[in-house]
Amino acid sequence: MKRVVCFGEIMVRFNPKGYLRFVQAVEFEASYAGGEANVAVSLANFGVNAAYVTKVPAHEIGQCAVNELRRFGVDTSGVLRGGERLGAYYVEKGASQRASKVIYDRSHSAIAEVKPGEFDWDTLLTGADWFHFTGITPALSDNCALVCREALEAAKRRGVRVSCDLNYRKKLWSREKAGEVMAGLMPLVEVCIANEEDAADVFGIRAEGTDIEKGELSREGYISVARQLTSRFGFKKVAITLRGSISASDNNWSGMLYDGGSTAVFAPSYAVRIVDRVGGGDSFGAALIYAQLEGWENQRAINFAVAASCLKHTVEHDFNLMSLAEVEALAGGNTSGRVQR
Amino acid sequence: MKRVVCFGEIMVRFNPKGYLRFVQAVEFEASYAGGEANVAVSLANFGVNAAYVTKVPAHEIGQCAVNELRRFGVDTSGVLRGGERLGAYYVEKGASQRASKVIYDRSHSAIAEVKPGEFDWDTLLTGADWFHFTGITPALSDNCALVCREALEAAKRRGVRVSCDLNYRKKLWSREKAGEVMAGLMPLVEVCIANEEDAADVFGIRAEGTDIEKGELSREGYISVARQLTSRFGFKKVAITLRGSISASDNNWSGMLYDGGSTAVFAPSYAVRIVDRVGGGDSFGAALIYAQLEGWENQRAINFAVAASCLKHTVEHDFNLMSLAEVEALAGGNTSGRVQR
Amino acid sequence: MKRVVCFGEIMVRFNPKGYLRFVQAVEFEASYAGGEANVAVSLANFGVNAAYVTKVPAHEIGQCAVNELRRFGVDTSGVLRGGERLGAYYVEKGASQRASKVIYDRSHSAIAEVKPGEFDWDTLLTGADWFHFTGITPALSDNCALVCREALEAAKRRGVRVSCDLNYRKKLWSREKAGEVMAGLMPLVEVCIANEEDAADVFGIRAEGTDIEKGELSREGYISVARQLTSRFGFKKVAITLRGSISASDNNWSGMLYDGGSTAVFAPSYAVRIVDRVGGGDSFGAALIYAQLEGWENQRAINFAVAASCLKHTVEHDFNLMSLAEVEALAGGNTSGRVQR
Amino acid sequence: MKRVVCFGEIMVRFNPKGYLRFVQAVEFEASYAGGEANVAVSLANFGVNAAYVTKVPAHEIGQCAVNELRRFGVDTSGVLRGGERLGAYYVEKGASQRASKVIYDRSHSAIAEVKPGEFDWDTLLTGADWFHFTGITPALSDNCALVCREALEAAKRRGVRVSCDLNYRKKLWSREKAGEVMAGLMPLVEVCIANEEDAADVFGIRAEGTDIEKGELSREGYISVARQLTSRFGFKKVAITLRGSISASDNNWSGMLYDGGSTAVFAPSYAVRIVDRVGGGDSFGAALIYAQLEGWENQRAINFAVAASCLKHTVEHDFNLMSLAEVEALAGGNTSGRVQR
Amino acid sequence: MKRVVCFGEIMVRFNPKGYLRFVQAVEFEASYAGGEANVAVSLANFGVNAAYVTKVPAHEIGQCAVNELRRFGVDTSGVLRGGERLGAYYVEKGASQRASKVIYDRSHSAIAEVKPGEFDWDTLLTGADWFHFTGITPALSDNCALVCREALEAAKRRGVRVSCDLNYRKKLWSREKAGEVMAGLMPLVEVCIANEEDAADVFGIRAEGTDIEKGELSREGYISVARQLTSRFGFKKVAITLRGSISASDNNWSGMLYDGGSTAVFAPSYAVRIVDRVGGGDSFGAALIYAQLEGWENQRAINFAVAASCLKHTVEHDFNLMSLAEVEALAGGNTSGRVQR
Amino acid sequence: MKRVVCFGEIMVRFNPKGYLRFVQAVEFEASYAGGEANVAVSLANFGVNAAYVTKVPAHEIGQCAVNELRRFGVDTSGVLRGGERLGAYYVEKGASQRASKVIYDRSHSAIAEVKPGEFDWDTLLTGADWFHFTGITPALSDNCALVCREALEAAKRRGVRVSCDLNYRKKLWSREKAGEVMAGLMPLVEVCIANEEDAADVFGIRAEGTDIEKGELSREGYISVARQLTSRFGFKKVAITLRGSISASDNNWSGMLYDGGSTAVFAPSYAVRIVDRVGGGDSFGAALIYAQLEGWENQRAINFAVAASCLKHTVEHDFNLMSLAEVEALAGGNTSGRVQR
Repeated sequence: MKRVVCFGEIMVRFNPKGYLRFVQAVEFEASYAGGEANVAVSLANFGVNAAYVTKVPAHEIGQCAVNELRRFGVDTSGVLRGGERLGAYYVEKGASQRASKVIYDRSHSAIAEVKPGEFDWDTLLTGADWFHFTGITPALSDNCALVCREALEAAKRRGVRVSCDLNYRKKLWSREKAGEVMAGLMPLVEVCIANEEDAADVFGIRAEGTDIEKGELSREGYISVARQLTSRFGFKKVAITLRGSISASDNNWSGMLYDGGSTAVFAPSYAVRIVDRVGGGDSFGAALIYAQLEGWENQRAINFAVAASCLKHTVEHDFNLMSLAEVEALAGGNTSGRVQR
Repeated sequence: MKRVVCFGEIMVRFNPKGYLRFVQAVEFEASYAGGEANVAVSLANFGVNAAYVTKVPAHEIGQCAVNELRRFGVDTSGVLRGGERLGAYYVEKGASQRASKVIYDRSHSAIAEVKPGEFDWDTLLTGADWFHFTGITPALSDNCALVCREALEAAKRRGVRVSCDLNYRKKLWSREKAGEVMAGLMPLVEVCIANEEDAADVFGIRAEGTDIEKGELSREGYISVARQLTSRFGFKKVAITLRGSISASDNNWSGMLYDGGSTAVFAPSYAVRIVDRVGGGDSFGAALIYAQLEGWENQRAINFAVAASCLKHTVEHDFNLMSLAEVEALAGGNTSGRVQR
Repeated sequence: MKRVVCFGEIMVRFNPKGYLRFVQAVEFEASYAGGEANVAVSLANFGVNAAYVTKVPAHEIGQCAVNELRRFGVDTSGVLRGGERLGAYYVEKGASQRASKVIYDRSHSAIAEVKPGEFDWDTLLTGADWFHFTGITPALSDNCALVCREALEAAKRRGVRVSCDLNYRKKLWSREKAGEVMAGLMPLVEVCIANEEDAADVFGIRAEGTDIEKGELSREGYISVARQLTSRFGFKKVAITLRGSISASDNNWSGMLYDGGSTAVFAPSYAVRIVDRVGGGDSFGAALIYAQLEGWENQRAINFAVAASCLKHTVEHDFNLMSLAEVEALAGGNTSGRVQR
Repeated sequence: MKRVVCFGEIMVRFNPKGYLRFVQAVEFEASYAGGEANVAVSLANFGVNAAYVTKVPAHEIGQCAVNELRRFGVDTSGVLRGGERLGAYYVEKGASQRASKVIYDRSHSAIAEVKPGEFDWDTLLTGADWFHFTGITPALSDNCALVCREALEAAKRRGVRVSCDLNYRKKLWSREKAGEVMAGLMPLVEVCIANEEDAADVFGIRAEGTDIEKGELSREGYISVARQLTSRFGFKKVAITLRGSISASDNNWSGMLYDGGSTAVFAPSYAVRIVDRVGGGDSFGAALIYAQLEGWENQRAINFAVAASCLKHTVEHDFNLMSLAEVEALAGGNTSGRVQR
Repeated sequence: MKRVVCFGEIMVRFNPKGYLRFVQAVEFEASYAGGEANVAVSLANFGVNAAYVTKVPAHEIGQCAVNELRRFGVDTSGVLRGGERLGAYYVEKGASQRASKVIYDRSHSAIAEVKPGEFDWDTLLTGADWFHFTGITPALSDNCALVCREALEAAKRRGVRVSCDLNYRKKLWSREKAGEVMAGLMPLVEVCIANEEDAADVFGIRAEGTDIEKGELSREGYISVARQLTSRFGFKKVAITLRGSISASDNNWSGMLYDGGSTAVFAPSYAVRIVDRVGGGDSFGAALIYAQLEGWENQRAINFAVAASCLKHTVEHDFNLMSLAEVEALAGGNTSGRVQR
Repeated sequence: MKRVVCFGEIMVRFNPKGYLRFVQAVEFEASYAGGEANVAVSLANFGVNAAYVTKVPAHEIGQCAVNELRRFGVDTSGVLRGGERLGAYYVEKGASQRASKVIYDRSHSAIAEVKPGEFDWDTLLTGADWFHFTGITPALSDNCALVCREALEAAKRRGVRVSCDLNYRKKLWSREKAGEVMAGLMPLVEVCIANEEDAADVFGIRAEGTDIEKGELSREGYISVARQLTSRFGFKKVAITLRGSISASDNNWSGMLYDGGSTAVFAPSYAVRIVDRVGGGDSFGAALIYAQLEGWENQRAINFAVAASCLKHTVEHDFNLMSLAEVEALAGGNTSGRVQR
């Protein structure tokens, strides 16, 4: 069984029930989420030996986050306890023309205040085949960026393959800061994952012919972006999710995978009725990593990753709770949603 | 008031709330359902004197099932008490490309372990105009198949008209066993109800030009199936539901009715946004029986049956809780869903 | 800050959760609503100094209604206490081909039994820029109609501008009675708001080429209706909502505004996935009033009003809990529903 | 199987969840209740053929009330449809020193506006062994009082035994009116049921030595009240519930039964931790009627009635959902509440 | 109507439903609370013109806190917007031998990071009769302590009477720091409110003969504490709550009031079945302030304050949602919790 | 870290919310439980390396059971997949004089149908310090009894200490069968755990002077039972829980531990307000095992075990979710339930 180590934050996520707005809520669903934690859980659901490295406060709410990871089989032996608070975020689900809203309450979290040297990366990465992080983690604090570097260097020393999802969050840092920090880390990354905006936001690399608000996608534009990323940072592969936002209820969803060649492979596009789209990109990343671990060729890999993340949009909360068999059924062409009984 | 006797199982149905997956559920909605029970309730909602014959354990959960039937006016005086357990089934609602899932936990139920002779069919059918069962009941156990035969023979003795919904369930029996048992019962049946797969599954009778996974329907194919069924078993009428599965959220829904002639009548097709599609076929059967009891001509009958079952897809849980007036309004062409106030 | 005074009923609204039918409900969501109360809350959410005038019983359920208004910043200092009961209404949410249902239980309410002279309109309208009521209030009782007249006359005396939403409710009064009473009040109204049926129901004024059940709309027909209303009653402006009911789940939604000229302005049409459409018309009225208070030109006004009411369809319960910024974003063309984070 | 006909109102009961106050509630549990309906359901749970006579509006909320009666096996064939509204009442559960609150919203209900002659009592009482009503029903309206008289006279004609629970409700009528109307009906009653206040409120008959607020009970005082009632109206038996209110959470509960002799029998007293005390008196009445139908001697009868109503205090909502076996176990002395498994 | 201004934090409070432990919760009830906010709401429920001064972030969760205050009629015109986060706290309700747990997540809140000069106290206190704060507010940050001083000095300038609840929170500051800061503020306070531990924790002043864990109380000890506080800081009155903790489910509850004389008045003690004890002390403070505003004599004042806070223990969440009439009924001796109907 | 292996069933547990009766429930809380699983989770919560051995069906509901164990840190690597169904049981919570009810639906479960040889006990017990089972597991089926023997013999081979909780369940087997089977297993057991009825039910060994229904306990009687058990089977220690059932809401709870000497140690008795008493005995067993692993002397051991199980009665569902620190605080004498903040 392959072992993947993911590193980042885990937060408590609060969302009103159903389509209630924040100002209507007298109770919130509480789940636990984080860009890299979402990847770890999805990989565990595929049968991978997934481990999560983070730091949570030594109180019950911190324990809840750990328990939720354990519940899905993620190895939490590398989780540190301490610090002041567990990050939180609030999500209000949109519908039709009303967009979803995210309010972060994650500053001063235990992981944001971690210091270099707290994690023993050589031990944590022993036996690991893959290391994954996203652009959110170095955005949490300067120290978090330093800890990412520690991890990447240990991964390099140990021959652990590395993926990074650019995941630009404008509420966490400026484009300038992001570009500078991420540019320093990218040379240690093998597989780069991004959505249609990240490359522009972080590195100023643009896909021609794309108007994100209108959801218009140009295949050539995306290949151009992937090629630029590759030539600048030496990635072996670049995977990009392609979202066509019709409304908060309906999206078209696809993705492409580029490996440095003259062209790229694109997955079929799915018309998705959205249950919960948060974590969609993370589920794409997890499935793409799975495909790399399995050594699948590019078309199979991107088809699997897009099918997995298509299905994530039908699952409440951040985690992608789809099994390998379920994703493969969809990737294999069964889109009818017929009841099995 | 016409009297219809239905015979089969009633189970407790557990489903997570909303679109939660099984592994996310810390509570389940509990309702009570069963192929023939669903028919009885729908008929009672149309104002028919509907009776349900089954056996449930002599404990509170068994009583819950009886209470739920009584709540909608079904006569439960023919329900036996005893046996070990009430069958259960779990439903996870699908969305978009994620299919709904059904997990049966119905073996060893009180009704599955009933023995021939436990029901006094001549008494139970006194005053009845119609008897209904489905292919699920003989699939429960060899004894259940024998009890079905007892009921059919009593119905024949008493001139009670009989309908059967083929309702093949691959988790309950093999195609071979189903074909053999059902072939023995069909000659006692007047009206046969089926979906687009049942005739092939049970009797190997196929509709040319239909690819169920893709939801493509051929009118001629269905007529061909109905004609073959009729010529083999002597049904007076064959009704078939036509489901076009676009996704777990959206289906096209229609049906046809064949009476042995050279052609058949088809209902208009509805594009349905699904709330809960379990029980859709049963609601079609109930409405079709209602139309037969009323002596409606075929086009009116199939239009009513398809309208009724279209509406069932918008109702949570298995029972079709639509009134006669509501179904007739839709069958009459009011599809706009405007608020009445 | 502009001040708007609204007058009418506030009721407790009971609806089953999600898509449950009335007969399935063992609990009801309780919110508080009323045509004019909905307008007041929406205006308060836009930052207007909105006041509500009504009468509620001097018990806790009456207090709940007041509290809900206060929660959104509505001034309730003009609410009288007394009378026998708080009106109630029950809503069952429709889906797909199943229409929503409304059951009124509002007769004998405190406000329906108010007597002329109970409200001191000159005080209540001090400092007000606008007065708003709907055709529901005079329909509650003859005395309510008299009190409306008191309010309109005081508004005239004090130079307060007046809007009325025709809002015909056939469960409250006959077309004849409505026409007679409303015709007496209209000359005191500056801005008339209506849906595609109201003008016909109340005044027998018809839009040619419109078949409401089929949701077909003719621009010329609506202009014709607005012109007739204007010439009969002397309105400065007539605003009409244009609803295309595809089903209970999907509507097309737009509106027009006419100011007595040779033509009218129409807003873009939105394809709406409905969360809750009750209160949609009220949210349109509130936004239209806001635009008048701001002195916006007609196209901007109708675009704003239609965007606001489009968004209302995505909010549970009657109140339109959208901020000015959110409405302006949609009116400005951002329809993609992308998450902001 | 004995048949008991009960007559009165059935209302929708709304209560906030748990111990929430009205002003905190955004949802209400909806159940269906009424003094005599509660008796009918309890008798059905004991296996009696119980029928309920009332009138409900011809809409879905009215149907919900009927469904809830049917669910527990009550015969609802005598329920009329029509009238304007279903009565409602709101209950806020108290705790410790905070008392429970009841807000009635029952005026103008269908049953309150029934007219003499609407019910065909001779048919409704065919086959009946017992007729039961309470002092609430004649309090609803003058017409209701007249209809009670119709029922009592028909009962007398047909030899049906009659019980009445005085059930004085000060929010429905004055003591004077109650005394006058009830005094006219009592001569037709065989068994009178009351709580410790009713005799004083309705007829000015007082139990010496009792201070209700303090919950002090004097056996001699109650016997004195029962003797006075008996001598004034000719009752065969008078049963009185004895409640010692320690707080809203804890009550002592007992009862006595007097049959005209020189003394009375008293049941053991139970210290009750209250789950829901509404309907406690009705459950006492139902059990007492059951004991009369069975011909039990007085001590057994009062012990059974007090045990039944003790258990009611542990059941949510008005209905006493205890089986005969469960009540007999407690009446037989098993008070330990040990789990059976 | 008297006007009271309260100053402090308002947080979102998260608690699992019922008696669930944190690690079992998948949803949290969300309410809004804070020591001084609780006082403001209770005063508003008594009919006082209560205003709340605080600072919340300019996002929807901050708005929720404001809305909840408005809902109960608190004047929120003095609430500033800005800062990073709304403080939060988590409560797990205890039962029997299991204690309740509180986890604070309030550091870095908008109010904790307020700076001197942000509030214009002279304007905020215009028209005020009373100013209230607690020892929690100066504990939030050094700046908060400075802002408290600003407020107290403005109150002194304007002749506004001042109360302070010592409310020591060991998770916020050390005893040493608390003692030093509070000692500097106390000379500006007229009425001091405390529980049985605060005086010892903050000022090292001890009640002889009291063992808090065992809940043993000595009247003389409390008088001694009050006398020491008075002589040290010059308070006009000292009020102390007396809690006897039998378990997390049952407490005895009383209080005393001392005015500098040779003795003190004590209220009756209540045996309370606890629904939610958080906010109990705040409800005592609010009622005591009310009594001072009304000029009630000491025995009436302490009886009212203890009755109010006794009732708070029966109300979910922090706010004391009891009316003046309800508190006066209990203070007047009605403890039986009988239903009023 | 010590390692404990527990073996038995894990079921889905369904209970209505709060105090609702089965017949009122439209939803059930779903948790996962089993006598030995409860022990494993409690040990994991104390920080022990606890493993659970069982068999569950290879479907999602089976996975839910595994996930719930993982969530609390239990090692589930020894769980087999297969078989037909996951056992279920229904619990209705009692209150006051109404007893809780348990309905088993566990026959034909995957573990009940396991065959000897399916588990590789030598591997499963590698590194284990302790093995625990209860009398429920051999009661499931003859094969389960054989598998218990396999496990016990492997434990003996490997020097793993063994405990058994007699846990007689009359719904699973007769006293005669239980006595015969258990007598064959007991010689391999070191520590025997029982409640006050088990020894009599299984082995006919009686405590003089105890009347379970009345909750009267005699210390001498219990010592006599423990002595008889010890002399018959050679246990090193016998631990007995002592429950005094006042009602379904209130119990007195204590326990004793006997080690073959002339006397025994008894823990203090706790008066418990019950939240959920199911699993109380299992939590006692887990804590007793913990004390043995730690080598605590008898008085400390029994005090800890009784404190742990006292606290379990305040936790919803079967698992005892109390930490070591929490139990030690209570065992150390802190019973006041004061809030910590």
